[in-house]
Formats: sequence, C-alpha cells, structure tokens
Amino acid sequence: QWTLLDWKPRRPDMLADAFGLGKIVEDGLAFRQNFSIRSYEIGADRTASIETLMNHLQETALNHVRIAGLMDDGFGATPEMSKRNLIWVVTKMQVLVEKYPSWGDVVQVDTWVGSSGKNGMRRDWHVIDCKTGETLVRAKSVWVLMNKHTRKLSKMPEEVRAEVGPYFIERTAIIDEDSKKLVKLNDNTAHYVKKGLTPRWGDLDVNQHVNNVKYIGWILESAPTVIMESHELAGMTLEYRRECGRDSVLQSLTSVSSDCAESSDGFAGIECEHLLQLECGDEIVRGRTKWRPKLSQVARN
Amino acid sequence: QWTLLDWKPRRPDMLADAFGLGKIVEDGLAFRQNFSIRSYEIGADRTASIETLMNHLQETALNHVRIAGLMDDGFGATPEMSKRNLIWVVTKMQVLVEKYPSWGDVVQVDTWVGSSGKNGMRRDWHVIDCKTGETLVRAKSVWVLMNKHTRKLSKMPEEVRAEVGPYFIERTAIIDEDSKKLVKLNDNTAHYVKKGLTPRWGDLDVNQHVNNVKYIGWILESAPTVIMESHELAGMTLEYRRECGRDSVLQSLTSVSSDCAESSDGFAGIECEHLLQLECGDEIVRGRTKWRPKLSQVARN
Repeated sequence: QWTLLDWKPRRPDMLADAFGLGKIVEDGLAFRQNFSIRSYEIGADRTASIETLMNHLQETALNHVRIAGLMDDGFGATPEMSKRNLIWVVTKMQVLVEKYPSWGDVVQVDTWVGSSGKNGMRRDWHVIDCKTGETLVRAKSVWVLMNKHTRKLSKMPEEVRAEVGPYFIERTAIIDEDSKKLVKLNDNTAHYVKKGLTPRWGDLDVNQHVNNVKYIGWILESAPTVIMESHELAGMTLEYRRECGRDSVLQSLTSVSSDCAESSDGFAGIECEHLLQLECGDEIVRGRTKWRPKLSQVARN
Repeated sequence: QWTLLDWKPRRPDMLADAFGLGKIVEDGLAFRQNFSIRSYEIGADRTASIETLMNHLQETALNHVRIAGLMDDGFGATPEMSKRNLIWVVTKMQVLVEKYPSWGDVVQVDTWVGSSGKNGMRRDWHVIDCKTGETLVRAKSVWVLMNKHTRKLSKMPEEVRAEVGPYFIERTAIIDEDSKKLVKLNDNTAHYVKKGLTPRWGDLDVNQHVNNVKYIGWILESAPTVIMESHELAGMTLEYRRECGRDSVLQSLTSVSSDCAESSDGFAGIECEHLLQLECGDEIVRGRTKWRPKLSQVARN
C-alpha cells in the first residue's frame, strides 16, 4: 500500500505537461493534471472557491477515464456501461482543504480509483501546490452505477468490473476518515433554513441532472454569513441520496453544532450539519462542514 | 487599421504556449491565451456555456494587463489607479457567438485595447477554434474608472492614460455593432418576470461586487425555457448601469420582441429585451439577446 509519505513534490521544471490535459503516472496507477487558478475561480478574498477545487477534482476524474481509453460517449461512462445505459453517480464525498490556493497559483491534482464494496468504485484525490509541494486538498468519494433511463441504481456488471478493475489500487488520500453518522435535520433541529432554491439554467450537466458540485452552493446558502466571513471551510462530508432535476425546488437547512471548544477529534473550530431537501421532504444531500478561523482574522484579533 | 481578414489561424504545432498563461503577440499590441474547454464548463448539450466564454474573456483581459507589467495589487488595476483607489468597471458589452466550442476543444482568445471617449477604455476580443481556425466569438466592451471607496465613477487621470494609452490600437472585433437603443422594460412591457433573485455566497469578486459575468445567469432566469431549449444564444448586448452587492435582491424582466420573420438587420431568429433591476426599481443591467435555432433542432425538424 502506498502512503502519502511516498510522494515527493515535483520541481516545476520537471512538469513537462505543465498545463496540458494530464497524464498517467505512478506506473499507470494514477492520473495527474495541473491547473492554474484563474481570475474567475476565486472569491472576494482572492483564493479559489470550494466549488473550483471540486470542479478540478471532477475534471481529473473524467480525464483519467478518457486517457485510460475507457471513455465512451458518456460523462465518464465506459463502453460496457454505455451499452447498458449506465452512468456514474456519486454517493459519498469527503473533502479536506488544508490551504486554499490563490489566483495564479498552479496546483497538481493526482487521482486514482479503488474498489468499494461489491458494486461501488472509490476515487481519491491528492492536490498539492506545484511550487511549494504543500498539500492543499485531500478527498475521497464513492461512485455507483445508475440506469440513465429508469434512474435506478444498478449492480456493477462483471463486464464493467473487468474494464475498471485493473486500475483499482489500495491507497487512501484521507487517513482520518469522517465515519460519524450524518444526522437528518428537520425544521425543529435546524437553526437556519433557506427555502425556494431552484436550479439556474446551466446547472444541469451532461447526465441531465444537477451536477454534484452545484449542491455545495445551495448547502452554504443556509450557513450563517458571520461564519463564512470569519471562517474558512476546512472540510466537508457529503452523502448524496437522491438526484435533483431542473424543476426541483429545494430547501437548505443548517444547524451549528459545535463552537470554539476543541472537539473529540482534536478539531478546534465550528462544525455544522446540513440537509438539502425537496419541498416535499425527500432528501437530496446530507452533509457536515468544519470551519476554522481565517488567517486574516487570526492576525486581526 | 487591422481587420479580421488579416488574421490567419495558427497551426496547432506552432502554439508554443498552448496551455500556458498567454503571451503578447502582434508586435506587443495584442494578448493571446489558449483555453481547453473543461467538463465543468459545459452544459447539458455538451457545449461551453455563455458564462464560460465570458469568463475566458475576463481572464485574458486581466492577464493582458499583468503581462504588460501594468498590474498592481488590484483586479486589473494599474499602479497609478491603485494610488487613487480606482478600479475598472464595465459599462457596455457586446458578444457575438458564431459557434459554441465543445468539451475538449481548445480555443484561442486574442484581446486588445483602444480608446473610448475621454474617460473610457475599449477592449475587444476575437476567439477562434485552434484546430479549425473558425471564428467562435467576437466581443467588445467599454470600461471606465470607479473609486473603490466612494463607488463613484471617475475621470481618467492623465497618469493612468499615460500607463494604458501606449497599448491603445484602432481595431474592431465587431463591424456590425449593435447601436440600437436598449429600452427600459417595466412590469407592463415585460412578458416574463422573475423576482427575488439574490447573489449566492461566492458571486462577489475581488472588487467586492457581483462580477459582471454573474448577471448573465440572472438575465436568462426570466427568459422562457422553451426558447433556451430550442435556440442558442447568438448574441448579446449589455449595458451595466449600477453595481450590485451581496445583499441586493433583484428582479429579472424579459420581453420577447421578435420572432421567426427576418428582421431589418438580416437576423432570422428570436430577439429579447431584458432588464435586471433592484426591487426598488434601480436599474442594474439593460440587455438585448438574439437567439438562433439549435442545429440539432434544425436537423430534427
């Protein structure tokens, strides 16, 4: 098994494919792509938004499938998946952000896949700052198959496993996994509720549903502004439970569950629980976010 | 004066800086940068969204200023601007999209600046498909200076003109400029009204206001879905009249002003007028959009 300690930061001058479409590395077992952080990928504080980081994760996942020669006409679908009208959908995601890159920084994203139970696929990411070698982001996710016509989850056919299985490796980007159960919030337990959220034209992806990255924005809609002004998102655990389409109307619920005092896992900061649901009550996403004071705030206080 | 006819598509193998941060071309008078269209920059129909194209225009504008050595600490602000707390704000923009690039396509964006009256700066763009040399997008814009503390427009100080003036050239990306007056819609003249639009966390840019690209999404919120499903945006003229901040609540108004019959300027398609305003009635953006049938629709009919 590989560990993160085996990884050495590359010197920038060794990055032959510095801004290209990525390449297979580590003896064919991982995929690597660099991104320069652009002006429209940053927020008011000049650092990349969490959506930007998640977009880069998605992009490397798809390019990995493509470069491995496994991309059919779908959004990451393999030939055997396309034959059966299967698409990938994400069910779980954990993202830990150690540091947000700034405008102009170049980040290097490594990604690889592994098995997850009988019918799932795991995908991990490790993002570093190209110049300093510092770890910026670590993330993991679980993906399952869905029939794009019936929109029902599917077992993984043997033929699909034969395609993706050879790429599976045992390596984890996150050692301290968030395995704590995500609670289901309701109107009584939530401290903040934002109603009437609707997809904008353009929020739909090629799979004809709202792309999983878009949910982050809605989840943060019900987080109190005072937290987002003084703190930065340090980590996030999401459980995707149901698709959301163009005509869905959503509610975003947030409860602030711990503050200041150091929690059991050694994290000093703010922890929030979240729920994104349809107006009828059907759950879309459960989530947990952790927030740490912004460096600029620490300096000011 | 240059015309577009002087431009020859570059062979891809001549693009030394294929995915870099761009470079000065045309004897120092223009700036060029390439973009590969990414998975998260496309919509359900697999082509780049209009916001993506506008983001690429913004990015090249800023990198042009930076590479010219004129970037101070601001978002495109020159040293003399920073001294006076001045920032650039856009007042007019016209974008013509001849063809939308697809996921994986590489586009080449050229941009240059010119004078616009006594106090303004004009910026134009010309975007081609790197592989085919086809023109994809042509755009022009007018920028003026604003004091970032008082938020009032400012004349262009001589010292700022001395910085940017040497880069001014006479060349136009759009020959058939849309000079028709933009009407002010109201509740009576608008066919479609969408109320209660608010910025999401993350819509603010480094200049502490909603970035001009974000307005496009709101404008399209009130455009009828049936048009967006069957047609693609062929062109857009926008007049930015007022800033919009984090706590603004907006209304999006649309009227569909012509259909089917070929209009006086030879355009066969749908034309819409738009207004984005605060709830109190203050205008944010006036706009006009033109739509042509999607190719896939033409083929189907």
